Amino acid sequence: MRLSQFFLPTLKEVPSEAQIVSHQLMLRAGMIRQSSAGIYSWLPLGYRVLRKIEQIVREEQDAAGCQELLMPTIQPADIWRESGRYDDYGKEMLRITDRHGREMLYGPTNEELITEIVKASVRSYRDLPKLLYHVQWKFRDEVRPRFGVMRGREFLMKDSYSFDLDREGARRAYNKMFVTYLRTYARMGLKAIPMQADTGPIGGDLSHEFIILAQTGESEVFCDRELIERDVLSEAVDLDGDLQPVVDTWTSRYAATDEMHEPTRFEAEVPEDRRVSARGIEVGHIFYFGTKYSEAMGATVANQEGLQVPMEMGSYGIGVSRLVGAIIEACHDEAGIVWPRSVAPFDVGLINLKVGDLACDKAASDMYQSLRLAGLDVLYDDADERAGVKFANMDLIGLPFQVVVGPRGLKTGVVEIKNRATGKRYELSPESALAHLTV
Amino acid sequence: MRLSQFFLPTLKEVPSEAQIVSHQLMLRAGMIRQSSAGIYSWLPLGYRVLRKIEQIVREEQDAAGCQELLMPTIQPADIWRESGRYDDYGKEMLRITDRHGREMLYGPTNEELITEIVKASVRSYRDLPKLLYHVQWKFRDEVRPRFGVMRGREFLMKDSYSFDLDREGARRAYNKMFVTYLRTYARMGLKAIPMQADTGPIGGDLSHEFIILAQTGESEVFCDRELIERDVLSEAVDLDGDLQPVVDTWTSRYAATDEMHEPTRFEAEVPEDRRVSARGIEVGHIFYFGTKYSEAMGATVANQEGLQVPMEMGSYGIGVSRLVGAIIEACHDEAGIVWPRSVAPFDVGLINLKVGDLACDKAASDMYQSLRLAGLDVLYDDADERAGVKFANMDLIGLPFQVVVGPRGLKTGVVEIKNRATGKRYELSPESALAHLTV
Repeated sequence: MRLSQFFLPTLKEVPSEAQIVSHQLMLRAGMIRQSSAGIYSWLPLGYRVLRKIEQIVREEQDAAGCQELLMPTIQPADIWRESGRYDDYGKEMLRITDRHGREMLYGPTNEELITEIVKASVRSYRDLPKLLYHVQWKFRDEVRPRFGVMRGREFLMKDSYSFDLDREGARRAYNKMFVTYLRTYARMGLKAIPMQADTGPIGGDLSHEFIILAQTGESEVFCDRELIERDVLSEAVDLDGDLQPVVDTWTSRYAATDEMHEPTRFEAEVPEDRRVSARGIEVGHIFYFGTKYSEAMGATVANQEGLQVPMEMGSYGIGVSRLVGAIIEACHDEAGIVWPRSVAPFDVGLINLKVGDLACDKAASDMYQSLRLAGLDVLYDDADERAGVKFANMDLIGLPFQVVVGPRGLKTGVVEIKNRATGKRYELSPESALAHLTV
Repeated sequence: MRLSQFFLPTLKEVPSEAQIVSHQLMLRAGMIRQSSAGIYSWLPLGYRVLRKIEQIVREEQDAAGCQELLMPTIQPADIWRESGRYDDYGKEMLRITDRHGREMLYGPTNEELITEIVKASVRSYRDLPKLLYHVQWKFRDEVRPRFGVMRGREFLMKDSYSFDLDREGARRAYNKMFVTYLRTYARMGLKAIPMQADTGPIGGDLSHEFIILAQTGESEVFCDRELIERDVLSEAVDLDGDLQPVVDTWTSRYAATDEMHEPTRFEAEVPEDRRVSARGIEVGHIFYFGTKYSEAMGATVANQEGLQVPMEMGSYGIGVSRLVGAIIEACHDEAGIVWPRSVAPFDVGLINLKVGDLACDKAASDMYQSLRLAGLDVLYDDADERAGVKFANMDLIGLPFQVVVGPRGLKTGVVEIKNRATGKRYELSPESALAHLTV
């Protein structure tokens, strides 16, 4: 993509309404634009990141045997009356009356709707287990939306739902999602720690939040350093095998959010040199709530004895749009965003320092072609701007690598590569630069 | 995917509420399930098709240099007051009041919002042209929603918007979308004919509908057979070149919907043997409307002389969820759906005729692995069911090819391949079958 053509409205000033760094950086980098309070348009740069995150989430759900479907945003009020949650949800639920006076709502979550779908077609224990998910926009009418996409009103979530015959089956599904979540966040370059959690309005008696560590995180968390040092992706896991031992290795170590923190237990269980207190952000939440919805809504199956029993259920959420902000909170410096490679909007930012100079134009254009041929996504800054502005903008949007083509380097046959995360710079021939970036 | 695990709630009965064949088949094939009137959940089989269509649309938009972003579903009423359309839209607009009493709405289209976004960051003719699109759920509160996803209330659309300095630029954008639309539909195996159209509530003075031919289409269309016989994909087109001659070859031939049809002109312009009257379905609509929104909303840029001029705009829509129904209307027979290969939910349906028989299980399982290794998406019917039920279900869901593994064939070392579209069957060795399917 040529910067001269790309729709990238970066801002020079820090917008005054943005209180946290991810919100500031997303506005400054031209990733989002507010449409109403807590409701954003995702501009091309931001949308690229959102889709990359969504795709990682999807691939890991698919790998776990979770099947994708899509429920609508607008739901009928009736099913929420059936479950008993229509009144519980209060003013956070965006209630709508259609032209015929029917009560509808913009779904804040989907336990009722998925239960109705599965109930209509699953008859017997032989149809179970089922693990279904969707990635859909949701709405919560927050009283004071703020922090950009971290606490927006219209937000994108992945939510999965498991349906099993019994507690053991439900626990298997829970464990599968537990392990899948660890892999999902690790693939985004994040350190995610599962922490026991309250179940809140979803209900149930087993629940974990997934908290990622971020310098500027919203809350304080306490955990055993060993959990942080684990390399989740290097451990091969059989998702169809017994995952209880894996889950146990995570839940047996101390990890707690501020609200659940017990200082005496922390000190007793964790040796001093492994005690970590850090800032964290919630990016996922999983629930086992048994028959709460299936009983209320009559979602039963015939068991092996032919008796009708309510299905055992769980639900599993990842805040997809929230993750864009959360990743920035975890990955930034004074100059801007520092994207992990797997979610970066482009792999490489190519800077032509002297647009209009024949040699620079030729070398930059050749490099642009070569990088794209090698399969990399490249943002090519071909704009007629001062070098300082170009460097600052490229640092702000935080692509993993920058390639700088300038007249001075070309005289000695080199271009400069900058690693955005480490800040290290290398002077290399164009061929070596290409080889370096495509390893 | 193994059928025994797949969430595919097919129906034996034709649902009485479904009046048209695509609605009937989508319900029977377990593709969708109604949530409220005109609002559907997309079950896994249907969602696979929806995503394949969306991806083709996206690839062709990207190829045209159109940049993807995403606007939210919920919009503020203010911008619709600015354009003057807030009252025009009447009861079809789903109006919402949030907890603070602010007037919002579920977007039925996005001219206002995109104009506001572009206006905020585009200052000069040097920032133009811009061609932006998104794929997003929209809502129109139809008084009597019917015909399944063909006229739903919550529906998925791709809409693009072009911003240019002058009429000539806008016409270039219009032509680019015109040609891109022809390619998009052709890739889905459809015959799409552009027809001059009324501009309706969008406004403007140049507009074409894209109508696909379908035996059971909603309206009668009349055209020159030559338009139908064109092979759009075989013609290489330079999308950055002058497309007016290409557009002219389409618009110079007779093509009209029922409302615009002029029998005398039809007979004068088209030789009798080329006169086609057929059924059609609208699947896209493009508009050039000049400065209608940019003037009302003050979206101006400085031109070469430094004067502020309103931007010239167009908008370009494809009904993505509607296309799922439209394709079925165009591609079905008495037994069920006949998917074009590019949008089929799976490439191959593999039927094991005798589950539990050692030889059949082994041969079917081997075939399943081989087909997947060859990169094909396979739905493997490993359910313990009668052959008649299996054949009927596989015909119903309409995958391009079926591979049948049965005890009789295995005795002579063959499996059967059925081409769903032609109905032709071949007996081949498993190796030849594999080669046949992976060409």
